[in-house]
Amino acid sequence: MDVVKFAIPEIIFGRGSMKYTALCARRLGAEKVFLVSDPGLEKVGWVDELINILEAHQLEWVYFGDVVSNPRDYQIERGARLYLSERADVVIALGGGSPMDAAKGIAIVASNGGSIHDYEGANRIHRPLPPMVFLPTTAGSGSDISQFAIITDTRRRVKMSIISRTLVPNISIIDPLFLQTKPRELVLSSAIDALSHAIESFVSVIASPFTEMQSLKAIELVAKYLPTAAVSLELDTLEALSTASTAAAMAFSNAGLGAVHALSHAIGGMYDVLHGHVHPVLLPPVMRFNMEACLDKMAQIGRIISGRRRRSKKSTAIEGIETLREMFLSLNMKVRLRDILPDDHNIELLCRMAIQDVCVVTNPRPVTWKDLVKICEEAW
Amino acid sequence: MDVVKFAIPEIIFGRGSMKYTALCARRLGAEKVFLVSDPGLEKVGWVDELINILEAHQLEWVYFGDVVSNPRDYQIERGARLYLSERADVVIALGGGSPMDAAKGIAIVASNGGSIHDYEGANRIHRPLPPMVFLPTTAGSGSDISQFAIITDTRRRVKMSIISRTLVPNISIIDPLFLQTKPRELVLSSAIDALSHAIESFVSVIASPFTEMQSLKAIELVAKYLPTAAVSLELDTLEALSTASTAAAMAFSNAGLGAVHALSHAIGGMYDVLHGHVHPVLLPPVMRFNMEACLDKMAQIGRIISGRRRRSKKSTAIEGIETLREMFLSLNMKVRLRDILPDDHNIELLCRMAIQDVCVVTNPRPVTWKDLVKICEEAW
Repeated sequence: MDVVKFAIPEIIFGRGSMKYTALCARRLGAEKVFLVSDPGLEKVGWVDELINILEAHQLEWVYFGDVVSNPRDYQIERGARLYLSERADVVIALGGGSPMDAAKGIAIVASNGGSIHDYEGANRIHRPLPPMVFLPTTAGSGSDISQFAIITDTRRRVKMSIISRTLVPNISIIDPLFLQTKPRELVLSSAIDALSHAIESFVSVIASPFTEMQSLKAIELVAKYLPTAAVSLELDTLEALSTASTAAAMAFSNAGLGAVHALSHAIGGMYDVLHGHVHPVLLPPVMRFNMEACLDKMAQIGRIISGRRRRSKKSTAIEGIETLREMFLSLNMKVRLRDILPDDHNIELLCRMAIQDVCVVTNPRPVTWKDLVKICEEAW
Repeated sequence: MDVVKFAIPEIIFGRGSMKYTALCARRLGAEKVFLVSDPGLEKVGWVDELINILEAHQLEWVYFGDVVSNPRDYQIERGARLYLSERADVVIALGGGSPMDAAKGIAIVASNGGSIHDYEGANRIHRPLPPMVFLPTTAGSGSDISQFAIITDTRRRVKMSIISRTLVPNISIIDPLFLQTKPRELVLSSAIDALSHAIESFVSVIASPFTEMQSLKAIELVAKYLPTAAVSLELDTLEALSTASTAAAMAFSNAGLGAVHALSHAIGGMYDVLHGHVHPVLLPPVMRFNMEACLDKMAQIGRIISGRRRRSKKSTAIEGIETLREMFLSLNMKVRLRDILPDDHNIELLCRMAIQDVCVVTNPRPVTWKDLVKICEEAW
């Protein structure tokens, strides 16, 4: 085995753990925190509740809520200016992947200067970031655990992957109570995002025993609790999905992802499609494409997802992919690319962009932009 | 599930990863490192090799090698004085549990003042410690991962458990090449220590899904590779045992331990018995004692260790304990308490001391000092 690295934040996990936010920020030296969230979380009351916790601990705060799904480069620049002019010292993010990634972008630009575009790719951040405490309110993106931040370059219409160990937050506070105020559709699509993280990281060319056990745990939990979540969002189910998302993020942050994420970043940059909507469409055809390069592992996945072992590894792997597709259909998810894209005019361009994404590097089977076109045609 | 915490260091794992030590220390701000190791590692050449790496990166260093197995309070005081007088800024430990625990003790006293005895128990350390980079040379203690340090109070003849999140090193560099220069007997007894960590943390009252998956992985790896290691210390085997030890440490650091460790700390404090020699003696009787309180989990352990499932959970659990005992015997390990203690005069005193140990708190079945006496009598 080559030398592998494994880095995760300190994790505080459980019902009501949100109440520790101020203590955590204080421990990291906070006097004035920079809180990033979004209008949805303001409306449902979580932002106020968090501000109450900060104030109860005599922490000053600045609020930044100018964040949309697939956060934009210009929003990062605005946030960084506010952070600096207010002389904040610790970044807190409350939200799904978008507010968390926006918070990371703001932390980068505020501490390292320049523009967010300067940091696209791996290991481009050289100066320390402000301490970060993240509270994920969906169970899927894993941004509270990972060294990834995905920011949309609005001029090029592309989602930039920014990867650096310094993007791992100091503390992740994972409170499943947040999920109770989320619509079922979002809970389900976030769980599929976590599943996609788990599957892609498990077959990644740089997976290690430390990431593999997290990936498998996440696959097992999503396969078990996704059908339950479709019927009832009980707290035990939400807690299990939060555990799955956290485990999947520990895995992908350290093992990387693959072609599903490369394509989904390209699609999200060009069409502003919700990230969670891309996985049910792309996961099965990419798994079929990758199968020959990692048959043992695809059979392990197949066995967990289908609950069955067939005579050959290949048929067990295929059984898993079929079960997955049936599961997506039974959840009324869109499983054809034509259902989420307006037309097929830009497939080639999309694939030429996707092949530049850093996620391609860890895909288990070497892949060209032409392979991606074939995958998209299969998914169309 | 209650609120749980999960904190581990950044991990760099793999053959030859020792070479990253200087870069890691630099990243943590080092100009003059305080290197803790022991005479055994000096002799075999690893201390010189590490110093060469530091010097090649223009790092100043101070060496402290006055460490014995079951490190003593007075050694900690000496080390802390040296650290302060030399104005070192980062602590590096190279060794098994003893040099690593000594390094933690030195870091505590150097930064928090007073005497090491002031910090016995949980959460007594209030000021930040110097950054720490640890290189474990045995696969068992887990001190490079954990928030535990065990230091012998020579006056009271007791091993003090010191537990604090700040005792988690910043970076753990786990290089399986170190194990190649270790005698087989030490490799095996360290692996049993890791197994004991994995089993006790798995059934701990504060185990969480994050620690349980690590515990199970460690149990699986030790059960698989211990018999292999008894025959041949190939690098793949050593790497697997290192993985097991690391996973077990992630688990016990966050879930705690149980009665085996409480007793082994008391025995190690009074008789200076090697920590690794106590587990083959105590693990089976403590597992039998705990069984009724955690039958599901003991059956899971039994199934992994014996590779078989019996008709009832209880018989599967017992099968596991029996298989374990047979494994210890086949490895020529001592499995009776009378083989490692000079006499049975102090059993009651030992058990009255053990019941004070913080590890008792997380034991799955409530335990009194009289229960411990019965366990010792069974093991005698």
